[in-house]
Amino acid sequence: MLGLMQDWPLLCHRIIEHAATYHGTQEIVTRSVEGPIVRTNYAEIHKRALKVSQMLQRDGIKLGDRVATIAWNTWRHLESWYGIMGIGAICHTVNPRLFPEQIAWIINHAEDRVVLTDLTFVPILEKVGDKLKSVERFIVLTDKAHMPETTLKNAIAYEQWIGAADGDFAWKDFDENTAAAMCYTSGTTGDPKGVLYSHRSNVIHSLIANSKDALGTSASDVMLPVVPLFHANSWGIAFSAPMMGTKLVMPGPKLDGPSVYELLDTEKVTHTAGVPTVWLTLLQHMAANNLKLPHLEFVVCGGSAMPRTMIKAFLDMGVTVRHAWGMTEMSPLGTLAALKPPFTELEGDAKLDVLQTQGFPPFGVEMKITDDAGKKLPWDGKTFGRLKVSGPAVAKAYFHVNTNILDEEGYFDTGDVATMDPHGYMRITDRSKDVIKSGGEWISSIDLENLAIGHPAVAEAAVIGVHHPKWDERPLLIVQLKQGQKATREEILTFMEGKIAKWWMPDDVAFVEGIPHTATGKILKTALREQFKAYSFPNAMA
Amino acid sequence: MLGLMQDWPLLCHRIIEHAATYHGTQEIVTRSVEGPIVRTNYAEIHKRALKVSQMLQRDGIKLGDRVATIAWNTWRHLESWYGIMGIGAICHTVNPRLFPEQIAWIINHAEDRVVLTDLTFVPILEKVGDKLKSVERFIVLTDKAHMPETTLKNAIAYEQWIGAADGDFAWKDFDENTAAAMCYTSGTTGDPKGVLYSHRSNVIHSLIANSKDALGTSASDVMLPVVPLFHANSWGIAFSAPMMGTKLVMPGPKLDGPSVYELLDTEKVTHTAGVPTVWLTLLQHMAANNLKLPHLEFVVCGGSAMPRTMIKAFLDMGVTVRHAWGMTEMSPLGTLAALKPPFTELEGDAKLDVLQTQGFPPFGVEMKITDDAGKKLPWDGKTFGRLKVSGPAVAKAYFHVNTNILDEEGYFDTGDVATMDPHGYMRITDRSKDVIKSGGEWISSIDLENLAIGHPAVAEAAVIGVHHPKWDERPLLIVQLKQGQKATREEILTFMEGKIAKWWMPDDVAFVEGIPHTATGKILKTALREQFKAYSFPNAMA
Repeated sequence: MLGLMQDWPLLCHRIIEHAATYHGTQEIVTRSVEGPIVRTNYAEIHKRALKVSQMLQRDGIKLGDRVATIAWNTWRHLESWYGIMGIGAICHTVNPRLFPEQIAWIINHAEDRVVLTDLTFVPILEKVGDKLKSVERFIVLTDKAHMPETTLKNAIAYEQWIGAADGDFAWKDFDENTAAAMCYTSGTTGDPKGVLYSHRSNVIHSLIANSKDALGTSASDVMLPVVPLFHANSWGIAFSAPMMGTKLVMPGPKLDGPSVYELLDTEKVTHTAGVPTVWLTLLQHMAANNLKLPHLEFVVCGGSAMPRTMIKAFLDMGVTVRHAWGMTEMSPLGTLAALKPPFTELEGDAKLDVLQTQGFPPFGVEMKITDDAGKKLPWDGKTFGRLKVSGPAVAKAYFHVNTNILDEEGYFDTGDVATMDPHGYMRITDRSKDVIKSGGEWISSIDLENLAIGHPAVAEAAVIGVHHPKWDERPLLIVQLKQGQKATREEILTFMEGKIAKWWMPDDVAFVEGIPHTATGKILKTALREQFKAYSFPNAMA
Repeated sequence: MLGLMQDWPLLCHRIIEHAATYHGTQEIVTRSVEGPIVRTNYAEIHKRALKVSQMLQRDGIKLGDRVATIAWNTWRHLESWYGIMGIGAICHTVNPRLFPEQIAWIINHAEDRVVLTDLTFVPILEKVGDKLKSVERFIVLTDKAHMPETTLKNAIAYEQWIGAADGDFAWKDFDENTAAAMCYTSGTTGDPKGVLYSHRSNVIHSLIANSKDALGTSASDVMLPVVPLFHANSWGIAFSAPMMGTKLVMPGPKLDGPSVYELLDTEKVTHTAGVPTVWLTLLQHMAANNLKLPHLEFVVCGGSAMPRTMIKAFLDMGVTVRHAWGMTEMSPLGTLAALKPPFTELEGDAKLDVLQTQGFPPFGVEMKITDDAGKKLPWDGKTFGRLKVSGPAVAKAYFHVNTNILDEEGYFDTGDVATMDPHGYMRITDRSKDVIKSGGEWISSIDLENLAIGHPAVAEAAVIGVHHPKWDERPLLIVQLKQGQKATREEILTFMEGKIAKWWMPDDVAFVEGIPHTATGKILKTALREQFKAYSFPNAMA
């Protein structure tokens, strides 16, 4: 027997409809790409998003067509999202930090028909313009006065474009499982892979994000997402903030410490979210100038592990710090490190220990850790295994890739290696392709790297598994020394000794001039493995 | 094109699974019906709910069958909910405050096959036992030691019943639109009507309830729902608290001021929810004994309008007060009066004015006000019209009633008359069947009643519309004086004069010995209309 509740599909554009109806005068403040601060509100965003829809339809864009954005966090980008999704087209957010060839590859793979771009990225797109076969038109997110001369096909200024629409348009109704947005993962191996979010998954993810132990903003809070709309669905904030009627402050292209500080301060921001490097420059700027942020209550930090000193710095300011973990395939929220019983009364180091974990999942995310054979491992806070996840906002497949990515229980393998503790707190210990498998046991390359980097002469450290005739794999520590500093193999190993289990100790140390990185700043271990493929341990015996 | 997200149906039992997995040691504390305080946790609730499922299945209960509960807020009641829903049976919560004949009518209409009842209600059920044709067995929510002699068919003590199960059972997977729960509205006119919630609507409603501007609890909060599980889906708390891993404190049968105070205090409750009469007795008890509740942060008040003095009393204690409005047909949350811009900085009376409205709807509830012809009315805070609502957790039909209850836009008429202000705050002004339609304009019977009750001699006041040859309807004020007090028609009308528009003034005052009420305490205006059906105004001219 079915329930007798209304058929009310979970559609993304219902979110901006709701914001415009009940929170119409709530502000969206942007540091524009052109320079000045621009103020608008949800009622205006909604009106102009309808014009975007109207113009896309006039340009022939239909349900299921892909429309790319390559843009900073601004009100125009936000309007574009809702305008694209409102007619059932798919908003494909392109990460401008990728190499131009990768951008071209991704746009071609997605078969984007229209690209909306910020002024900043016009030169990059011009470089690869002739390779973008599917793109019929480029819309530059600016007004006519700022419109540059460009070779981009059928280019038009956004304001001029939507200026031709009267906004007399009604959004479409369709199945909530319709694709709404698309985001490619920039893996360290293989081609980028497209994650295809549905309207349903985005709405459910936003409801989850708005709970108190996740991002939890209200209509009386002010949110500044430093995390870009082009990065992992902007951690859902482009949906979750309008859903609650939260004032949004959009930093545009300036993500440096002083610029972020200025907006946090002048707009009385209560909640903000971004990656550790952003907070590092913010905290440095504040310390150097003895600045305070009396309105700031809550900082979400994800993308990579949050250093302990950074957690402490925010706590000392009276700010709640929420370490978060997720991935593009998870929309992206996976876990958040809120304090809960029995840990709520902790102080000092014990408190930092909990806040530094990746946290526990909200309802809607289920997890397990398994060995290589898929057998579930215990949640003792020590045993680590492959982290696998399930939920209504977790990917089941990639766009135009015919590979099953779920296990027999329907779980997606995150590619991370983690421990779970008895209270559900998860701690990432490694990537599964980087973990060193030594005699049937696993050694965390990340733990070794974090330890090695504590040596005063070490600038950066990477650990890879190298074949060993007896143990299968053993860890090789690759070190880049700080400029002008010196340290020997023995000095570094002695420094590490006693701080980890003896069998975790690297079998050797190799010194390099520079450690290679991906476009998004991750250590490129594939390149290191290539570089050291002929290497063999001095003490290895067949 | 569809998105590529996992097929993960929103099922109620996933909530208790999540709670048991990530918040297993979180407490559920109950003042038991037998007397003592009983402590358990989410892991145990989950285990025992599985045994309930196992036993129901063993007793032949299948997907779509109705299983009734008539019970206080206790851990056993909570287990029963999840146990019933976990096999796709429908948990029908029966309100024990109804007259026994109404209870029998409802159980027969629902065709409940099993009834789980608290000890308290065994005598009531015994009275109507022979009328309950569909019921095959009664399960008394107690242990063998407390099991009474009873004439109830196949009666067994709950603990004995689930004691026969080993708990080795897996919950079912089915369509998220499957019916999960059922609750009859006790209207003042006509037969009770069954609202049929789905798994999807309950899960979405809980996600909505957990946002910061709604009930917003976290895993570090402690929630005491005074609102019963048998009343309007317990405002969603039986789902929303486990979803977040919030500690639950269950008051059992004792809802008096001292008992509620004791649990709020000893269990360090941070959040609580209930109707105004409960808070009245609590506040009186606290004032009389000079008591404090230092841990209490947040009080939700709904069911009927919250008096201004009560809002102020909680604010003076440093407690956030959230006035809420909803109805059984809405799962039930409709609006909540959180403060938001431009009202966040208000103080004193201006702040109370906002907190006393019914508030604004969360995402997932859409509203409109219309005239009788269905034309939308302006949101100016003054114009009032029929309040109509839409959303994924709003009813589209009643159980076994073949009447369309939605308008052409898919909205459900709440039967309330309300104003909406430009910021989305709703204020109930009347019930649509009670509003007085005078010369094409509407007069709020509730506003007149609230004004009349301010006269020192008036114990209770009711206003009904009486036919008038010129104006169609005019208000008749019906007054019950306080014992030993006297007041004339003229004295009462003079008291009201100048405080409302002149054309709102009642045309006459009638004095009665007693004003009739429904089983749930509402004024029974149908009886008053019957009583005054021969009445005509002294000044009415044909």
